[in-house]
Amino acid sequence: MGDGPAPLARCDSPPPTPPVGSGVVTDLPPLDPAADVLALTRALVDVPSVSGSEGALADAVEAALRALGGLEVERVGDAVLARTNLGRPTRIVLAGHLDTVPIADNVPSRLEDGRLYGCGTSDMKAGDAVMLRLAGRFGVPGAAPAHDLTFVFYDNEEVEAVRNGLGRVARERRGWLYGDLAILLEPTDGEIEAGCQGTLRAVLEVPGRRAHSARSWLGANAIHGAAGILATLAAYRAREVDIDGCVYREGLNAVRIEGGVAGNVIPDACTVTVNFRYAPDRDEDAAEAHVREVFADAVAAGATLAVVDNAGGALPGLSEPAAAAFVAAVGRPARAKLGWTDVARFAAFGIPAVNYGPGDPQLAHTREEHVLVDRLQPAEDALVAHLSGSTA
Amino acid sequence: MGDGPAPLARCDSPPPTPPVGSGVVTDLPPLDPAADVLALTRALVDVPSVSGSEGALADAVEAALRALGGLEVERVGDAVLARTNLGRPTRIVLAGHLDTVPIADNVPSRLEDGRLYGCGTSDMKAGDAVMLRLAGRFGVPGAAPAHDLTFVFYDNEEVEAVRNGLGRVARERRGWLYGDLAILLEPTDGEIEAGCQGTLRAVLEVPGRRAHSARSWLGANAIHGAAGILATLAAYRAREVDIDGCVYREGLNAVRIEGGVAGNVIPDACTVTVNFRYAPDRDEDAAEAHVREVFADAVAAGATLAVVDNAGGALPGLSEPAAAAFVAAVGRPARAKLGWTDVARFAAFGIPAVNYGPGDPQLAHTREEHVLVDRLQPAEDALVAHLSGSTA
Repeated sequence: MGDGPAPLARCDSPPPTPPVGSGVVTDLPPLDPAADVLALTRALVDVPSVSGSEGALADAVEAALRALGGLEVERVGDAVLARTNLGRPTRIVLAGHLDTVPIADNVPSRLEDGRLYGCGTSDMKAGDAVMLRLAGRFGVPGAAPAHDLTFVFYDNEEVEAVRNGLGRVARERRGWLYGDLAILLEPTDGEIEAGCQGTLRAVLEVPGRRAHSARSWLGANAIHGAAGILATLAAYRAREVDIDGCVYREGLNAVRIEGGVAGNVIPDACTVTVNFRYAPDRDEDAAEAHVREVFADAVAAGATLAVVDNAGGALPGLSEPAAAAFVAAVGRPARAKLGWTDVARFAAFGIPAVNYGPGDPQLAHTREEHVLVDRLQPAEDALVAHLSGSTA
Repeated sequence: MGDGPAPLARCDSPPPTPPVGSGVVTDLPPLDPAADVLALTRALVDVPSVSGSEGALADAVEAALRALGGLEVERVGDAVLARTNLGRPTRIVLAGHLDTVPIADNVPSRLEDGRLYGCGTSDMKAGDAVMLRLAGRFGVPGAAPAHDLTFVFYDNEEVEAVRNGLGRVARERRGWLYGDLAILLEPTDGEIEAGCQGTLRAVLEVPGRRAHSARSWLGANAIHGAAGILATLAAYRAREVDIDGCVYREGLNAVRIEGGVAGNVIPDACTVTVNFRYAPDRDEDAAEAHVREVFADAVAAGATLAVVDNAGGALPGLSEPAAAAFVAAVGRPARAKLGWTDVARFAAFGIPAVNYGPGDPQLAHTREEHVLVDRLQPAEDALVAHLSGSTA
């Protein structure tokens, strides 16, 4: 679960010493997809894999997938790709990141009161363990899933987007990502979260003219000049948009304001950074146009507006047959995903994508991160049922 | 010319290596009050005396004053005090600081096109030179000034108020500051600037509640909450007050605003620092009451307001006979001093005080600091005329 710095407390220990480089199979105990999902989750958590140090874990996952015998496997950096090629009319992509935020004295894992504690338990090694279980069931010779399956384990999801392993796979091995539905096993508490909102950041800069504050009339106070921008933000009424039964609630917020030179100087600049979270019925251009319209008066009065970051959202795509079938299989209504997530990378190719995983999103990135043990098996069971066609 | 960081570019070189400690007369060439005012200004500028390193210059000034033979001289740290004791019915105090802002490749001095360039030329070694010339004329045996005279050369005016040498003299040798009129030879371009405005700084803090910006409705945006404060500031109409013919123009300004946690977090705090410059008909308490009244709505809405700094101004006191006589002697109307200056330290004892000096206040603290050579002699002449009684 990425999306920039988290509002919750971040794990703040330094990353562990990076393990031996990618591609070298180390002497870790092998991962066994035949082990139960809890044991597999623990085994994954106990191999540290802070963003940028996923090599050892990727090695272990690659070795386990190759050993199954029924999968085409490819390694792309520290991303591991595997798929069945059974000629099924539909293909479902299952994706999960291997990396975690920095460890906070919470590795190895610890089982207590029905909870498995540890860095990455909820976000998202429990989901990775479910994926490995599915690979172990459907990626062996003679297995007969209802759909062809693609497994994507990737690196660097918890850091800046430019390093994101799924983005790299999309650029370098796009064919591996095609399918009729993508399921990301990010923590969703067992709910289906569909699509995602877009996010745009813009910086408004209000100019002024410096002067000594004892002679303020010789200057122009840029902070005072930002009054209209803050009034616009305070009065802004955000839309709620229903798409495929998912309600996306937008928001336009100042996330930073800065101005001032010294305690006796009329400031000549004030900058307001705003973050617009927008429903996926707007694309990136429409989102920018909206923000420019909202602040048209401020710009007319002399402010500049620069969009510094704009990532479009993803429509839920639940009217697509493969997605609708999955929602039916899980048996609960999908809800809107409000943060930006990697589902948007699939949506950019026209592939419906949802988040669905056993972890708890509220615990992601916290020192107390854990996953409820009794959420693991139901997630696996629901996916097994859907992928084997028994609920279709 | 102190008053906190200057709005103009500050000299930004590191201070020079401090000279030998206070009280030790070094081997600098002696200052000669019989030299002309330009030569004396150059000699003063060429002894570096960045705040905290005034020792060598104070030593030289002390030695020059003691050598005159007609003055009682006392050293208080790096302040040098000297006075006549002739039993005159009135006493005039002349004061100037010896320190400068940090040197910016502008020492030693340089004479070019009728301008003397160098750190401290305008602010205020030209004024100090005039003081030394006056001491040389009136501080010798047999001199007959119309008033008893006190000379106060002091340290650390350009830094935080707690280190100010005049403040230290006021605490430790208050009797040395009494008189019927104090004249500070700060740069005023040869005009009399009377009294000074007060200055108050307050920090308004608007609270909020953090949330992920994708779910902004779960939070409360503190930056948006500051909209009313900025609107109040933008709409504020400042008073102009005429006192003794001096017009004081007030101002209430934001000098800093800060808020923001991260690009995806609804901020839980926004602080606005305001600076109120107030006419000397308000005292410190009245100024604070006014600021609290202006922001009463914001405080009622949950903001906190803390006064972090409040220095009262000084009434011009031009109705006092000694001050009126000096204004008449100079022959031009006094104008209001808009910044806060050390005249307020005299005003606190009920002593009328004015700024009057040959330097250019606009050049203070700049890399290009200089003084117009043809301003030096007229300033000396006007003071000589007044102090010798020839214009009274």
